[in-house]
Amino acid sequence: MVDVAMVGAGQTKFGNHPFGLKGMWSEAIEKAIESVDNDFHPKSVDEAFIGSIAFGGSQLGNTAALLTEHSGMGGVSVRRVENACASSGFALRDAWMAIKSGQADVVVAGGIEKMNDLSASRKRYWLGVSGDTEWERLAGLTFPGTYALTARRYFHEFESTHDDLVHVSVKNHMHGFQNEVAHLRKEISFEKANSGFMVADPLTLYDCCPTSDGASAVILVADHLAHQYTDTPVWVKGSGAGSDYLALHDRPSITQLCATQAAAKRAYSAANISAGDVDLAEVHDCFTIAEVLATEDLGFAARGMGGKFARDGEGRRNEGSVTINASGGLKSKGHPLGATGTGQAVEIFKQLRNQVEPTRQIRDAEIGLTHNVGGSGATCAVHVFGRER
Amino acid sequence: MVDVAMVGAGQTKFGNHPFGLKGMWSEAIEKAIESVDNDFHPKSVDEAFIGSIAFGGSQLGNTAALLTEHSGMGGVSVRRVENACASSGFALRDAWMAIKSGQADVVVAGGIEKMNDLSASRKRYWLGVSGDTEWERLAGLTFPGTYALTARRYFHEFESTHDDLVHVSVKNHMHGFQNEVAHLRKEISFEKANSGFMVADPLTLYDCCPTSDGASAVILVADHLAHQYTDTPVWVKGSGAGSDYLALHDRPSITQLCATQAAAKRAYSAANISAGDVDLAEVHDCFTIAEVLATEDLGFAARGMGGKFARDGEGRRNEGSVTINASGGLKSKGHPLGATGTGQAVEIFKQLRNQVEPTRQIRDAEIGLTHNVGGSGATCAVHVFGRER
Repeated sequence: MVDVAMVGAGQTKFGNHPFGLKGMWSEAIEKAIESVDNDFHPKSVDEAFIGSIAFGGSQLGNTAALLTEHSGMGGVSVRRVENACASSGFALRDAWMAIKSGQADVVVAGGIEKMNDLSASRKRYWLGVSGDTEWERLAGLTFPGTYALTARRYFHEFESTHDDLVHVSVKNHMHGFQNEVAHLRKEISFEKANSGFMVADPLTLYDCCPTSDGASAVILVADHLAHQYTDTPVWVKGSGAGSDYLALHDRPSITQLCATQAAAKRAYSAANISAGDVDLAEVHDCFTIAEVLATEDLGFAARGMGGKFARDGEGRRNEGSVTINASGGLKSKGHPLGATGTGQAVEIFKQLRNQVEPTRQIRDAEIGLTHNVGGSGATCAVHVFGRER
Repeated sequence: MVDVAMVGAGQTKFGNHPFGLKGMWSEAIEKAIESVDNDFHPKSVDEAFIGSIAFGGSQLGNTAALLTEHSGMGGVSVRRVENACASSGFALRDAWMAIKSGQADVVVAGGIEKMNDLSASRKRYWLGVSGDTEWERLAGLTFPGTYALTARRYFHEFESTHDDLVHVSVKNHMHGFQNEVAHLRKEISFEKANSGFMVADPLTLYDCCPTSDGASAVILVADHLAHQYTDTPVWVKGSGAGSDYLALHDRPSITQLCATQAAAKRAYSAANISAGDVDLAEVHDCFTIAEVLATEDLGFAARGMGGKFARDGEGRRNEGSVTINASGGLKSKGHPLGATGTGQAVEIFKQLRNQVEPTRQIRDAEIGLTHNVGGSGATCAVHVFGRER
């Protein structure tokens, strides 16, 4: 079986981006190529998988081919992968399988979204349409509303209060403050995060991630090529994915994501590790409560103990048992929908190679994980990365 | 290396369909399951790839998970694959690689589109947006216009006239007339096809495929499972894909598709065959001229000889050197965008197993091929199928 090495990774800054889709994508690819230690030419790419929900709601079509044409990969076998906010997590999974299949040696996985050209109503549409439409969106339930329901239920079932969510927000802003590519680069105090503008009770502005523009891309190669490109590849040791009922009322519980649990189980099995082996994880904290659930569903905290995990600072950089969202996460680094999943992989690549800003470098990390969720949990992709093969 | 067997394949009738997306998809899956000789349960599916341009322009989101939930595959790792009109051709390719990767044993590839709920302007949008937007669509160039340019240029470069295209149309209607799942089931005479309503000179109504609703799905399994499900699997012997510049003016020639040529070369190489070995091919005849180009780009006719190939009846069922579009092709069977690619594979599956209507069965066919094009040729996926492994 072929092993898969990540030899390059790059992204635009997440935020309100001046460039259009082609410019953003080209920047992500250029940065990914620059990060490869030895010469790399985009013409050597055999397959490309580009995650996007709506290509930013743009009018462009056949956009996957358009983007590869504009980034030096003309002629490559390329397609768009769409899976709501997990689009590029699945692009990464499909790229990983393409190499393992023996049909491709050099593969690009990436993602892109441009949210800030959209009117407020179109932005609401493209966000809302990622969840259930028939029972939820058309009845008026927004994503903040969905996660507010989850938070309320979580507080009802377990020993947890909104204070625990504030700890998540403060931590992620502390992590993202020093990240040059983060959207919201500001530290916030517990008091400030605890007195935010109410969005959907109990979630305030400081519980919600921003909507960002951005693009991200990683370069994967088959094991026999890894050392042609770098002496320090990051190995994609495992990939797992799953899905769940789209509508909340069909799920056995709204305080856990079965899709995450299934994806994690499969990724750990493929990588032959357990949750306790993970040193740092980029998890899908579209809302602070989502990070609390993720710490449980990924096995970092026991069921019902995710609130305490946050309260105790277990996810803090170089302090806790496992660093959660060293990049700042969706909350501070930002959330350009289709670009988020491979953006998480960019952070893991740099952390495991000791290439992030020194002040935010995780020490002695061997194993990293990414966790990318679609919609309110209908789809999920989890990946495990290691410095050792 | 794992070999990939197709053990089931099914589709809705293509046409103006009364059901919504969930109903259409469930029908395609149900028919695919019914076609498996031994017991098959949708819960055994490990991965699913669903091709669609716009899920029929519907308001539903996270739709891949919604469709698998509604067809008994809840929990499966699933994503949408989008590549303009080649969406499910690439879904098939990615499903093939998923099995070859050793990460999945049972995989569904399918496609779906619902065009006839859309207003005329939305239909034009979702069709038009599959080609180049910046230089072509926004300047007023439609798809019939694109292919009319190609036809005019073809007649200028080679010994060919519109009569050759009429032969394509007559043949495909003759083939599709007896296909129970075809959209336009009517035979047409040369005279009738030659006097059609002009759409984009020189292309008449009889040169253009219809816009259809439809869904299609195939079930692929790893070699070690094939005989658990059937004694007569159809082997997916090779897959190839490629891309090209989106805008016509960037291509070296508009009378050939580089994406098809690259995809065919890769598919033939993977299957270890040459064009001369193919007994029947389902090619992407969105317009009659596209079939002429395809016969050349796939290697069935020499460059510039595709018109003569049609004129001489070389693609006729059981008469010519290779049967082209035994199903009726996009012209007669119909073209539900995202459902077309795996719909082609359904036809090959049934033909190679001698399971189509007796009057339209290809005799002694061993090797089949599918050819699915995105937009005006920016993306293409080619697959080779065989009765023998």
